[in-house]
Amino acid sequence: MSGNRTDLYEIRMALSYLRRDMCAPATFSLFVRALPQSRGFLVAAGLADCLSFLEDFGFTDAELAALERITGLDVTPLAGLRFTGEVRAVEEGRVVFAGEPLLEVTAPLAQAQLVETALLNLVTHQTAIAAKAARCRIAAAGRDLVDFSARRTHGPDAAMAAARASAIAGFAGTSYVAAADRYGLAASGTMAHSYVQAFPDERAAFEAFAADFPASSVFLVDTYDTLTGVDRAIEVARRMPAHQPVGVRLDSGDLHTLSWVTRKRLDDAGLTGSRIIASGGLDEHSIARLVAAGAPIDVFGVGTRMGVSSDAPALDSVYKLVDLDGRPTMKLSAGKVGIPGRKQVFRPTGRPADVLAAHDEEVPRDHEPLLTTVVRDGRRIGPLRTEAELVQDARDRFTADLAWLPAHARDLVDPTPVRVRVSDRLHALAEHVRRSLCSQPI
Amino acid sequence: MSGNRTDLYEIRMALSYLRRDMCAPATFSLFVRALPQSRGFLVAAGLADCLSFLEDFGFTDAELAALERITGLDVTPLAGLRFTGEVRAVEEGRVVFAGEPLLEVTAPLAQAQLVETALLNLVTHQTAIAAKAARCRIAAAGRDLVDFSARRTHGPDAAMAAARASAIAGFAGTSYVAAADRYGLAASGTMAHSYVQAFPDERAAFEAFAADFPASSVFLVDTYDTLTGVDRAIEVARRMPAHQPVGVRLDSGDLHTLSWVTRKRLDDAGLTGSRIIASGGLDEHSIARLVAAGAPIDVFGVGTRMGVSSDAPALDSVYKLVDLDGRPTMKLSAGKVGIPGRKQVFRPTGRPADVLAAHDEEVPRDHEPLLTTVVRDGRRIGPLRTEAELVQDARDRFTADLAWLPAHARDLVDPTPVRVRVSDRLHALAEHVRRSLCSQPI
Repeated sequence: MSGNRTDLYEIRMALSYLRRDMCAPATFSLFVRALPQSRGFLVAAGLADCLSFLEDFGFTDAELAALERITGLDVTPLAGLRFTGEVRAVEEGRVVFAGEPLLEVTAPLAQAQLVETALLNLVTHQTAIAAKAARCRIAAAGRDLVDFSARRTHGPDAAMAAARASAIAGFAGTSYVAAADRYGLAASGTMAHSYVQAFPDERAAFEAFAADFPASSVFLVDTYDTLTGVDRAIEVARRMPAHQPVGVRLDSGDLHTLSWVTRKRLDDAGLTGSRIIASGGLDEHSIARLVAAGAPIDVFGVGTRMGVSSDAPALDSVYKLVDLDGRPTMKLSAGKVGIPGRKQVFRPTGRPADVLAAHDEEVPRDHEPLLTTVVRDGRRIGPLRTEAELVQDARDRFTADLAWLPAHARDLVDPTPVRVRVSDRLHALAEHVRRSLCSQPI
Repeated sequence: MSGNRTDLYEIRMALSYLRRDMCAPATFSLFVRALPQSRGFLVAAGLADCLSFLEDFGFTDAELAALERITGLDVTPLAGLRFTGEVRAVEEGRVVFAGEPLLEVTAPLAQAQLVETALLNLVTHQTAIAAKAARCRIAAAGRDLVDFSARRTHGPDAAMAAARASAIAGFAGTSYVAAADRYGLAASGTMAHSYVQAFPDERAAFEAFAADFPASSVFLVDTYDTLTGVDRAIEVARRMPAHQPVGVRLDSGDLHTLSWVTRKRLDDAGLTGSRIIASGGLDEHSIARLVAAGAPIDVFGVGTRMGVSSDAPALDSVYKLVDLDGRPTMKLSAGKVGIPGRKQVFRPTGRPADVLAAHDEEVPRDHEPLLTTVVRDGRRIGPLRTEAELVQDARDRFTADLAWLPAHARDLVDPTPVRVRVSDRLHALAEHVRRSLCSQPI
């Protein structure tokens, strides 16, 4: 019941439709018009939250009272409204490209219109973060990644979403406790500089930490002098029971050089099983450089730049009316011409060459349809999954799609997305609708 | 009660402190180390949410159970924990610069540590957005701005925060209904392209809208052909009662040229009181260009780029231990050396020249201290304010500070922030602490 979590224009339009009994089924298509320049692909995310939103959709009495106060309009037509429509969607974790619908909503016009703001918000945000995290995964080339972004995401809920989206993209864990709990993720956490500062000296801090957390002692070594810190960590670690895993976290300076020196000192001290964790302003580019240079880093803690998708914090996503009562529609605004009609995406097995097709075209041989029906008559269909299972399923899907993704789309610097061909039938439909719009007196 | 909305390392450190009875009062200072290159100033925001978080801080039984499950640690020392400390802060809406504390928390060490993640998250996000919105205000040079960002912020809560932060920066309204309700803002909303498409033709759509919302008819004219749309809007508007305000929204194409042609056609039709609203991917730079060119645009609808602070979606914010039990502390990490001790910021009246000082230095003549005590013994002090009053107060403060801000700091392209001088006493303290750290065997 969060009907007012929407833009006012959705309310106005819905009221106008309802007053005029314009209740025909409408299909809106949610897609990204163009990828950010640096992106060769996106990773679908946000669907689970969309479905929760739709199931709960409606206006409380307090919301209706607020709406009436704000607008001065009679909003009683909105009382008792629920979402009773259908949703077809690309599952979370799938790789997607520009122009491919992530979601298609078919419902009585007012309903389908009212949910626009929330669906766009959830899908845009989470898909952007998942795509950024996926780039970090590509850069890490098999080494572990942990989400450290909670302190600088756009609010606490965005921290939850960043932990989840990065888990879908293959991160091994998160620092955010609430997200680890809710989504069944591994929680990761060491110490801050303040911990070292709170003790009389660094050695005392490391000894206290080792005593209190013998099963997970990772020492942050750069509070004062990094290599002195490494030596202190080694001294303390060597006095710990031999089978306990220890680690060293490097959080500043030249991570490449420091990781080599640290590895050598750890190995020389017989701590060959110890791990080196690197953090501090990392993103896919710095990770790729460290990996390419062979830096002996076992785990990358990735924070802000992933958590806000720093170079592309938003996507050019839209929610467009593509069909009204069986009549395909499109707009002709300058630079924003769309393709009308309900759609499907066909993905060939083993070949990077998607096809954007009409929703009811026959699936070509050796192709898989990406959109499936996930809500019918306003209710989720399919087996009930826990939050943890949803994330695990999405992560598995992304792992499979990542193997399918060609090198030119995975490229981190100058990627070329997979080409999405428009099917002959959809192309003909677009031409037909465009011509009829241009010929009629609008 | 959202104790688990934190990073795991805060929990580990707090447990370690509590087990060892390290309960001395600690002061952490929250500040931005360096401004993003394009920023000449920041606008403090997020404090209200921080205070709500601190008042409610603690761990529910469910959170403790989850923590124990996740960490395998005995977390009973956290049961019953509350925030009982003091907070000194810069009020929302004030202009701030790098190195100036936005917040200083003084509390028993474990408490002050545990709240780090949440406070950093809230202040960083909202301050970043308020600063971006402030740049739009500068660019608009007195014309109205409206927040249209809800559809692409980082989650629904970020949409609330963007509406609030932009209101603090001086936006005249928001499209987001829930935020208008909660924060007492003007709600703004017209129609989408889908509305026009839902009718047999554009004229029918405009007529329906005018009939349903005679008091606020803004016509979106670019669904098919913009200037034809303008003519249709004029036809419909001229048949409306003469005293009703009407408007035209331009959402694509060359906004400068279109706004001139639109204005001329509206005026020629006698609709001189009508307003032109521009939207579509606007930010401070495109607004500044349109204003400089004299485009007759009355209202700018600003969405995504403001709502995610697209060119600087995060700030280099930190929460640093600066004092423990009366002993000033600092770290020496490469490139991240801090200034120890509790602080105050003195701002001279009428002159752009802040002073970063020790917290107990005497206020110099004609200077104002920016940090005031807002929480004592864990409780908010000062008069109770409604959500709407908090926003209005902050907006008034920003308006005053904007008048104080020199042109070089307001510059949108290559700004130079106001210089922040470190007081002699604070400088001497930093030298003293650094020397004692470097001389002792750490």
